[in-house]
Amino acid sequence: MAIPIFRSTSISESHKLLNSLGAPNSSISKKRNSISRCAPSELNLPRSEVSFCIGTHLIPHPNKVVEKGGEDAFFVSSYNGGIIAVADGVSGWAEQNVDPSLFSRELMAKASDLVGDEEVLLSQNRGTICFHHCNVGLEQCVNYDPQILLKKAHAATSSIGSATVIVAMLERNGSLKIANVGDCGLRVIRKGQIIFSTSPQEHYFDCPYQLSSEVVGQTYLDATVTSVRLMEGDTIVMGSDGLFDNVFNHEIISTMAEYSDVAEAAKALANLAHNHSTNSSFDSPYSSEARTKGYDVPWWKKFIGMKLTGKVVNERDI
Amino acid sequence: MAIPIFRSTSISESHKLLNSLGAPNSSISKKRNSISRCAPSELNLPRSEVSFCIGTHLIPHPNKVVEKGGEDAFFVSSYNGGIIAVADGVSGWAEQNVDPSLFSRELMAKASDLVGDEEVLLSQNRGTICFHHCNVGLEQCVNYDPQILLKKAHAATSSIGSATVIVAMLERNGSLKIANVGDCGLRVIRKGQIIFSTSPQEHYFDCPYQLSSEVVGQTYLDATVTSVRLMEGDTIVMGSDGLFDNVFNHEIISTMAEYSDVAEAAKALANLAHNHSTNSSFDSPYSSEARTKGYDVPWWKKFIGMKLTGKVVNERDI
Repeated sequence: MAIPIFRSTSISESHKLLNSLGAPNSSISKKRNSISRCAPSELNLPRSEVSFCIGTHLIPHPNKVVEKGGEDAFFVSSYNGGIIAVADGVSGWAEQNVDPSLFSRELMAKASDLVGDEEVLLSQNRGTICFHHCNVGLEQCVNYDPQILLKKAHAATSSIGSATVIVAMLERNGSLKIANVGDCGLRVIRKGQIIFSTSPQEHYFDCPYQLSSEVVGQTYLDATVTSVRLMEGDTIVMGSDGLFDNVFNHEIISTMAEYSDVAEAAKALANLAHNHSTNSSFDSPYSSEARTKGYDVPWWKKFIGMKLTGKVVNERDI
Repeated sequence: MAIPIFRSTSISESHKLLNSLGAPNSSISKKRNSISRCAPSELNLPRSEVSFCIGTHLIPHPNKVVEKGGEDAFFVSSYNGGIIAVADGVSGWAEQNVDPSLFSRELMAKASDLVGDEEVLLSQNRGTICFHHCNVGLEQCVNYDPQILLKKAHAATSSIGSATVIVAMLERNGSLKIANVGDCGLRVIRKGQIIFSTSPQEHYFDCPYQLSSEVVGQTYLDATVTSVRLMEGDTIVMGSDGLFDNVFNHEIISTMAEYSDVAEAAKALANLAHNHSTNSSFDSPYSSEARTKGYDVPWWKKFIGMKLTGKVVNERDI
């Protein structure tokens, strides 16, 4: 479960700082522009009119931590106004002796590389190289569009597997553009209430849309593409289903209200999700939804991981 | 309760048609570009690359139908790719002997007028008049931005009262831009699932954000501004809280699946919401949320209308 949290801030001219700490617990490759935790200091990016303050926390699935370090991967970047992406490897691949973390990690690594490559292109030869290389408008070429970034990163990924994935890009005018395939999610909190929420996509209960190495999977064209106009002080919480299946929105709001430090808040949310997932008496968002859809899901079923690789699920398996 | 439903379609060159039927049950003034029901025929607008097929249905609140015809108002327009707006007059004004429908109706009438006026300006003298009149960029001047339309319509409204309001504009590239103040809502259904949903804003339970004649109300700056990239075949369901308080998302999906005619679907949804609101044994989204927040709300409390004018509510009142 990966939980990046942003808090949007205005840029102070005296405060411009490019912070390159590297993401904790993230095993993906990072290039020159990758950035991560900046709490409680602010990450104010040159050329941006708005910026993020970012905190992240990742807790691998308890069953997967020893062998592989978890199936989630994420990256954060200072590109344009800032980019954050989370991918969650579909655990069902383990049944076919495929490490589910390989695809999600490579997907994030490729996305990070693409962003880094194109930022260099942009700074060296604005417009010209992009025009020749991409034969499209500059905006699309340099991946101002999160859906195009998904397309390119997916095409560049060679690992076997599949992953749910979400990418959010902050534009300099304050718009947060989001492309989402599957059941990763994003919430925007403003003045103590959630004013924007992504909606998960699934084929049927617990079988989310996913980018895949196989042709049966979804593509960037299946992404839900949305945007939300941010205001100073907004908080953005992103995560894989490990967060949103185990923590209710009102708990996210109350947890965020407790912490001014976004890194501490991300850690608290991750711990809350982990505790709920191991608490047999907690009626989680996941178990509530399962009941609504006619399933009686024992708590341990979710705990051991129930994502599927695409085959039609038998109700007995649920 | 007003329920406009859209289904997005591609334009067939042989099928361009400007349909001017006038909105059923809508008492607001309409100008030259107002359009309404087009089911099952398609509304394909000149100059657009995407278009809407629109069906609407309005059922006034049972307690208000005789005196005032209800407190909801809406308008639809062919402007640009199409505009739809819903406003819900805050019923608490009746306690001060103010007709709650006046504000919502005038707000929609002003919005409709503004859109009509600016379309004429645009066609007569593209750019020049807008520059002199508005002193802003053309896009903002002609209200391609739903938040700017809210600002202008609110400023032009002189009635006493307040209203929740939502405006959605379809751009020619397929993006649906939305500005929302309060607890009206919008859902986008794609392939049988909700892929986008607005989030209501409220000060506290059952006291929504609202545009008002009084300075204590909210302004366009408080609107949540979002957008979603539409695909052909998407269905957009908009409504006041009368719909979303009484009908679950999965019921909206199943009802929409039953009807290919959007006008029939809008009518079916409105009837379902009405039936649920008068069924004391139905555990609605509203009563579920009330319980989550610690209230024990009798069904008839919602039925008789519980919106507030802004004073702090006493729990006994709920």
